[in-house]
Amino acid sequence: MATFMDVHHGMSGITEEQLRAAHQADLAIEGDEGVHFQQAWADPESGTVYCLSTAPSKEAVQRVHERSGHPADEIHPVPLMV
Amino acid sequence: MATFMDVHHGMSGITEEQLRAAHQADLAIEGDEGVHFQQAWADPESGTVYCLSTAPSKEAVQRVHERSGHPADEIHPVPLMV
Repeated sequence: MATFMDVHHGMSGITEEQLRAAHQADLAIEGDEGVHFQQAWADPESGTVYCLSTAPSKEAVQRVHERSGHPADEIHPVPLMV
Repeated sequence: MATFMDVHHGMSGITEEQLRAAHQADLAIEGDEGVHFQQAWADPESGTVYCLSTAPSKEAVQRVHERSGHPADEIHPVPLMV
């Protein structure tokens, strides 16, 4: 298992409710891929969303996000943490 | 106080020791600006570092990072969190 930070652009105006709904949609199916989305942060002004997850691969992270209807624009493994 | 995610590019090959040293340098002076850096994640392959902080402003976050010798390329307020 590795840790990933993924980034979504173009989410300008996202609300807390929408962020929560997107996160819940991920949580509902993440087990199918062995992924766990730990936390998500959103900047509604620039339309940027960051998601932190643990997963077997970046492809697994993307499969969950795609099935939930919000594919990530970038997915970075973040093996270093402090 | 608000929450910020800042991003550094061009950090290819960063090591755990370097990430820790950079974070410690921030922690040593963050109090001057009322900032607190909570966590940082690094992808040595793409050279991307993400820092999560609480701070009075994005300018305060940048002042700490600048004084520590590693200005951020992007700083996003992230008022939404889940």
